[in-house]
Amino acid sequence: MTLAVRYLSARTLDTAPAENPPPGPGEAEIAPAYVGICGTDLHIFHGDMDARVAVPAVLGHEMSGRIVRVGAGVEGWSPGDAVTVMPLRWDDTCAACQAGHQHICRHLDFIGIDSPGAMQQRWAVPATTLVRLPRSLPLDHAALVEPTAVAVHDVGRAQVRHGEKAVVVGGGPVGILIALVARAAGADVRVVELSPHRRRIAQELGLAAWDPGADDVPELVRQWTGDAGADVAFEVSGAQGGVDTAVEVLGVRGRLCLVAIHARPREVNLHRFFWRELTLVGARLYDRSDFERAVTLVTDGTVPAERLISKVVPLTEAPAAFEALEGGGDVMKILVDCTDDARGAVQ
Amino acid sequence: MTLAVRYLSARTLDTAPAENPPPGPGEAEIAPAYVGICGTDLHIFHGDMDARVAVPAVLGHEMSGRIVRVGAGVEGWSPGDAVTVMPLRWDDTCAACQAGHQHICRHLDFIGIDSPGAMQQRWAVPATTLVRLPRSLPLDHAALVEPTAVAVHDVGRAQVRHGEKAVVVGGGPVGILIALVARAAGADVRVVELSPHRRRIAQELGLAAWDPGADDVPELVRQWTGDAGADVAFEVSGAQGGVDTAVEVLGVRGRLCLVAIHARPREVNLHRFFWRELTLVGARLYDRSDFERAVTLVTDGTVPAERLISKVVPLTEAPAAFEALEGGGDVMKILVDCTDDARGAVQ
Repeated sequence: MTLAVRYLSARTLDTAPAENPPPGPGEAEIAPAYVGICGTDLHIFHGDMDARVAVPAVLGHEMSGRIVRVGAGVEGWSPGDAVTVMPLRWDDTCAACQAGHQHICRHLDFIGIDSPGAMQQRWAVPATTLVRLPRSLPLDHAALVEPTAVAVHDVGRAQVRHGEKAVVVGGGPVGILIALVARAAGADVRVVELSPHRRRIAQELGLAAWDPGADDVPELVRQWTGDAGADVAFEVSGAQGGVDTAVEVLGVRGRLCLVAIHARPREVNLHRFFWRELTLVGARLYDRSDFERAVTLVTDGTVPAERLISKVVPLTEAPAAFEALEGGGDVMKILVDCTDDARGAVQ
Repeated sequence: MTLAVRYLSARTLDTAPAENPPPGPGEAEIAPAYVGICGTDLHIFHGDMDARVAVPAVLGHEMSGRIVRVGAGVEGWSPGDAVTVMPLRWDDTCAACQAGHQHICRHLDFIGIDSPGAMQQRWAVPATTLVRLPRSLPLDHAALVEPTAVAVHDVGRAQVRHGEKAVVVGGGPVGILIALVARAAGADVRVVELSPHRRRIAQELGLAAWDPGADDVPELVRQWTGDAGADVAFEVSGAQGGVDTAVEVLGVRGRLCLVAIHARPREVNLHRFFWRELTLVGARLYDRSDFERAVTLVTDGTVPAERLISKVVPLTEAPAAFEALEGGGDVMKILVDCTDDARGAVQ
């Protein structure tokens, strides 16, 4: 038997033995190595997504691992191959899929939310979701490929061009990854973040960071851009104040890429959108090209994964890690290590 | 002496004699023929724009007329030439101009708001603002070129493509013009409008129109689009409910073109922007190519101007027409006729 981290009800996780039936046709069974804890996982832990999640639910979708065995009809993959997973299954028939936007399929199965995730010691997924990892990429670093793919998608949706000035509002893991990817695209980037710890990490990565609690961010942007305003802003904070800041700092024809989830409607200064001919563009998830680009960026060090990994905990301590994360604290990304335990637990 | 319609203070217009100095270097003097009353003119009349408008202010920027005389250095224009005016002066030095977006110059002079407009019998403007009208285009129809240029710009900003489904929320003059221009671009269009009179005009123009007070517009859009949602929506109502409808009817990757002026921040369902990867794009005014395209569309009947002109009043009755328009009523576009009076008044 192997172990899985399971969500049972609001604020309650456990670790429990899991069945490991052989992978079905077209499936691959993976031994997950490292699984990142994502903001969405925390939302589930809080009980915010109980209407969507079928309990007991195995969480986790930011992962790396190795293939253990493959089901009938799976070609090109062998036991031992290092992989990550693009955790999306679509129906290929809805209007979104027909228009070529499978990643926002109207009936999307997000693996790790809508179906069992990676926070376990054996995980069967469709072979079509596998993404190959280079030998040179350490598996703990590779757990950052999925959030990096989010950032690649966001920077693409915002159409960031070389020499542009970009403001990232919210300097958590996704915000920092967006800042790094935008910088790699040639943008000059500023991060706006309340947490001193996260601002410090940004600065250690060479990213100037402003404190919206103390700095007059719109005035700083005016000085920085010679009164022109920023070309691009990313709203990654999820807060009303973040929306306000992102709209206010943009110059004429500026683009605001909406990354964060806003559960409630927000007040938006639509007059500014009219007056400056701004654009707001929603960005969700990623496609395969984003994922493959993300593998490259984590492998070549554009995304310095080791600087973003605050802590690695064994699978059996994942429930405690969720509780600690809920209390906030000075963290960026926490990984759950499934490897050591796997060795002990697998018969 | 000639006459001018002047805004003096909230809800107070008069007609008064005006000086007609010879046009300065680079200027042309026009005898305006027909001048449309625009929603912005009504805002000024209400006193909403007193902070921006220097009184006494001559209103009017939707116009047609003929050149009377030209100042030094003006070439290519002769007395008698039929023209309209693109009423914009920019500084060519600000960030917007430097980026090629002169029409949203940071220090834009909108002629008819920020400087004297066309609702008078002689009007001097920079020759650079002149747009030539074909001989075959009646001058009353030509007064619709300016609002048609707005519609051309909006349809361009929304990147409407052949075969797409578009919803226009708000069926006043600009909304109807957007619907006509979008249809000419190959879109299948629906208009959403509260006024039965305006819905009837839309329907007479072959545009299906829904009543948001009685119809379940999102449900009608679902039926119309086979549950896919619309490709494009135009928010032309200026109301919170219009914003809500425009966001709700869009399918994945749908584009919302924001045309109306929203003086207050509006609640926007940003989660829908994220979930469906929607785009919101602000659109303001026009550039010269929009204007030239508008001349073509009014001339070739794509925009059936005579169907949109509710009434033509002589210049001396313009103050009464503003008061009548303020009371609402069953109107689309009202034109002020400067020609007959001009004949009587000019010595």
